[in-house]
Amino acid sequence: MKVIKSPKSIKREIGKQKRKAKTIGFVPTMGALHEGHLSLIRQAVKENELVVVSIFVNPLQFGPREDFKKYPRPLSRDLKLCRKEGVDFVFTPDPESLYPKKFSTFVEVAGLADQLCGKFRPGHFRGVATVVAKLLNIVQPDRIYLGQKDAQQAIIIKRMVDDLDFSVKVRVMPTLRQKDGLAMSSRNIYMNMRERKSATVLFRALNLAKLLISNGAKDSLRIISRMRQMIAREPAKIDYIAIVDLESLSPLRKISGNCLIALAVRIGKVRLIDNTIIRA
Amino acid sequence: MKVIKSPKSIKREIGKQKRKAKTIGFVPTMGALHEGHLSLIRQAVKENELVVVSIFVNPLQFGPREDFKKYPRPLSRDLKLCRKEGVDFVFTPDPESLYPKKFSTFVEVAGLADQLCGKFRPGHFRGVATVVAKLLNIVQPDRIYLGQKDAQQAIIIKRMVDDLDFSVKVRVMPTLRQKDGLAMSSRNIYMNMRERKSATVLFRALNLAKLLISNGAKDSLRIISRMRQMIAREPAKIDYIAIVDLESLSPLRKISGNCLIALAVRIGKVRLIDNTIIRA
Repeated sequence: MKVIKSPKSIKREIGKQKRKAKTIGFVPTMGALHEGHLSLIRQAVKENELVVVSIFVNPLQFGPREDFKKYPRPLSRDLKLCRKEGVDFVFTPDPESLYPKKFSTFVEVAGLADQLCGKFRPGHFRGVATVVAKLLNIVQPDRIYLGQKDAQQAIIIKRMVDDLDFSVKVRVMPTLRQKDGLAMSSRNIYMNMRERKSATVLFRALNLAKLLISNGAKDSLRIISRMRQMIAREPAKIDYIAIVDLESLSPLRKISGNCLIALAVRIGKVRLIDNTIIRA
Repeated sequence: MKVIKSPKSIKREIGKQKRKAKTIGFVPTMGALHEGHLSLIRQAVKENELVVVSIFVNPLQFGPREDFKKYPRPLSRDLKLCRKEGVDFVFTPDPESLYPKKFSTFVEVAGLADQLCGKFRPGHFRGVATVVAKLLNIVQPDRIYLGQKDAQQAIIIKRMVDDLDFSVKVRVMPTLRQKDGLAMSSRNIYMNMRERKSATVLFRALNLAKLLISNGAKDSLRIISRMRQMIAREPAKIDYIAIVDLESLSPLRKISGNCLIALAVRIGKVRLIDNTIIRA
């Protein structure tokens, strides 16, 4: 396994592999790898001849009051995990090499980026779309692997890939969960024991919604109100609960077609997100 | 020579050629080809094994009151010229195939796009950057050929290519001119005889600036004022005359380093641009 810091070097190395017509699977991460990431890496190893993982805490997607500085960076542990999974290249660029002083180009996915988390994290998805566009050009993968946990991110990246004609297949893999249902996240480590227990409320609220819908509930506002009631019992602050169209992310009054139920909740200092898809 | 309308088909065709490790030169155009375009095509033929020309009047870069609808589209003449020059593929997409209904991703080059022409054509360079990002992903060229006449466009595309890590070399070729100095442009045909004669004032004003500078002039405002006086003698409306840093496009008070002198002037219903570079 090669660990490469320089964008130019990894481009060159991957270029060599591409000339051998190897298929390339790419898993972009911010490191602090957990089972969720590993499931993406395993899928990439299964489906491609060469697997590239990027580990880059992207400053462009953090707001000024967010946790960029304290975001966990256990690099040597991450590299061990990658090696164990059979990753070929790990790309670990410095922020300065991806964003030199003159950097001034941004990729915006209009509309989609202003919904859900976008309302609470202005500029976040612009940062995500921009870094992923860069990484796609550097790594030139055949397949990119994303987690369903970051549903809006996956939808925005799919839209960008289609709109800008990138030659990559976007593979979105299921959310991995702890035994009690909490979605895996690098940010879970920020919580203390009590908060950790409350955090299962996101999963429980989604299950409640699914139950209500399977029992015939159609009215989004009523379903959301029931979810709110459940979450209100915990020491949690709701950023949003939304039932939206799976492609446009626009709110749905009535459950119909494929829809996404998504929520973001603050517990202590941690902001947690989770979601589920309801298929028509 | 193959003429291909569908983005998917040309991607596939070019993919085949890339697997043979052919180098690809790309000349993006809006058609209505003139000697300026042909000089780019000839350079591309000289430097690459395969040459792709796109002919696409990009709606995204026209303002609501601009000449999108009446922009000249002499396709069969353009194709003849391409064939004669030895072009391999001509890409002639429909607007709907590049911008389907759900399209919502835009590439913005902050700062650079707001200067010079950007002030008078809001959204123009966003449209240019977005379509070029798409075309680069579709054509995957080794080299892209642009004309120096559209200086700001070339600078913005260079910035975007660097910032988003595209693997393409940007080649900017000299402006071609009529015998009387008028820069070649597909829009020159909009002018009547009298306007056509006045139009040489852009070139004359640039030459005046060069002369003043070679005689030691350093003060940009004075130079610009002399250019204004010259243009005022013609039935012309000045959009701007600017002396700017060649990379940042920010205005320079004093001539120093490499600088760009650029101007946009309306004559009758035509908006003409021209520029010259002063090397330190």
